[in-house]
Amino acid sequence: MTETDLVLAVDVGGTSIKAAVLDTEGGERLRRVVPTAFDQGPESIVTAIRDLVLDRVAAASDDGSPVRAVGVVVPGVVDTEAGIARYASNIGWRDVPMRDIVSSAVDLPTAIGHDVQAAGLAEATLGAAHGVSDTLIVVLGTGIAAVVVSGGQVVRGAAGIPGEIGHIPVGDLETRCRCGAFGCLEMFSSARGVARLYAERTGSAVDATDVLARLDDDPDAVAAWQQATETLARGLVAGALITDPARVVLAGGLSQAGDALLDPTRQAFEAGMPWRTAPELVTSPLGARAGLLGAGILARTVAEVSG
Amino acid sequence: MTETDLVLAVDVGGTSIKAAVLDTEGGERLRRVVPTAFDQGPESIVTAIRDLVLDRVAAASDDGSPVRAVGVVVPGVVDTEAGIARYASNIGWRDVPMRDIVSSAVDLPTAIGHDVQAAGLAEATLGAAHGVSDTLIVVLGTGIAAVVVSGGQVVRGAAGIPGEIGHIPVGDLETRCRCGAFGCLEMFSSARGVARLYAERTGSAVDATDVLARLDDDPDAVAAWQQATETLARGLVAGALITDPARVVLAGGLSQAGDALLDPTRQAFEAGMPWRTAPELVTSPLGARAGLLGAGILARTVAEVSG
Repeated sequence: MTETDLVLAVDVGGTSIKAAVLDTEGGERLRRVVPTAFDQGPESIVTAIRDLVLDRVAAASDDGSPVRAVGVVVPGVVDTEAGIARYASNIGWRDVPMRDIVSSAVDLPTAIGHDVQAAGLAEATLGAAHGVSDTLIVVLGTGIAAVVVSGGQVVRGAAGIPGEIGHIPVGDLETRCRCGAFGCLEMFSSARGVARLYAERTGSAVDATDVLARLDDDPDAVAAWQQATETLARGLVAGALITDPARVVLAGGLSQAGDALLDPTRQAFEAGMPWRTAPELVTSPLGARAGLLGAGILARTVAEVSG
Repeated sequence: MTETDLVLAVDVGGTSIKAAVLDTEGGERLRRVVPTAFDQGPESIVTAIRDLVLDRVAAASDDGSPVRAVGVVVPGVVDTEAGIARYASNIGWRDVPMRDIVSSAVDLPTAIGHDVQAAGLAEATLGAAHGVSDTLIVVLGTGIAAVVVSGGQVVRGAAGIPGEIGHIPVGDLETRCRCGAFGCLEMFSSARGVARLYAERTGSAVDATDVLARLDDDPDAVAAWQQATETLARGLVAGALITDPARVVLAGGLSQAGDALLDPTRQAFEAGMPWRTAPELVTSPLGARAGLLGAGILARTVAEVSG
């Protein structure tokens, strides 16, 4: 590996913007994290992203380890071809020409991508799906999305938006999703979904981590978590029966719950296909780093194209 | 096309066994259909299949159009590698070495396959999915199964059993499927499922065709059909969001309902993904011939291998 194999990866998340210089193995240096300042509006978040990129590209040069490309992953709807962040409900932006903003600021080839899709790509390349030619990687973050790997190839889809397992109708059909449809998986089994289920029972606005911390002594936490994992299992059954993977990987922030997630989900997952052996169900070793690593992989694709 | 491009295709169905000599374009000759004699037990059905194959191979030779291979598709669980019909609940057989029985009777290379998977293969090759590189073909027969075509390749799966969309849990979760799981799509939207929904409301045991014929003046038929198409739409939403096809093709016997099926299903399908343009939803031009045509395609693969 030469120093020119380094890229800058940026993961724009719900609470913070993370940036780091990555090598080809996913090893990182010069990490810096800044808060996502929602209260100051979408324009200041775009400015914060650009400033963080400028700062880290300069820091990498100063460090004698210049980067040759930048990858930025963002939530919401992304047009990766056009390089535009179309829409993100939690940030509030619309049609931000993110690729041009970043690449013109630092004069480097830049890729933008969808945070969850990028996390799935990292899992397929570096994580728990590495080396398995048929996998379903389900990223449980603020929302839920998946990457399908079939015969060693990532399924790209006709419209470029496969893996939207977060919006399949396996939940309570009375519940309307922010997308407008009913019963969407991510209303129940994403980090936001778990918090919503708990708030619905208790009126308390706490996050998914708090719900998990209360599983030992709070029946409402237990009930919310049970609904979350049972609904997740139905979504995984749907994904696994349609695509027939050897391994299903749970990734993203919520996957760090480990056995508290894996045990009940696996039990319901296996019960959902009694007539066949269920695929292996595992959590990812990459955890919350997957998005950043995915941004690095995207950066590398444009670095290669640009020579 | 030479005469040696002819194959014998056999489709073992719930009510009849169809056989015909097929050319490479799906054109058929020498069709013969015999009833599936359930009351005489699985052994006599196996004998009837073998006798029908012997009869049609001889007829093809007499006609000056000898076949070079045989393809037989059967319902239930099939081990295509081993050539064994593992199990079919409606026929009652277990572990029938179908490939050896047929190939030793006529001394020709023989392939066996799953009827619904074969119908999907025919759609991908000759039917409504022909020429579209990302498609989801859903075969609505006695059961429901699908073929996923991604980037021009049929998804094979890790265990060789992809497309089992008939068992994804998008129906009423109180309803137990014959597979042992709850809420399976095919309990609601297969031909058998439609008949079951109508019988549940009325106590009348009629088949799906009769339910369709009563849509103009029987509120129970209307209600059963609505539940069938709404549940089907949820299954299609799940399949389409995970695999992102350009076109979803409804095939199999029930697809011959045409607009009575397509109109309500499409409405619910599109409503299930309000945030994106839904893939095109069409019915197949192959109809009930798809299984036979799929058997012909399978026969051709072994004919090629055997030279």
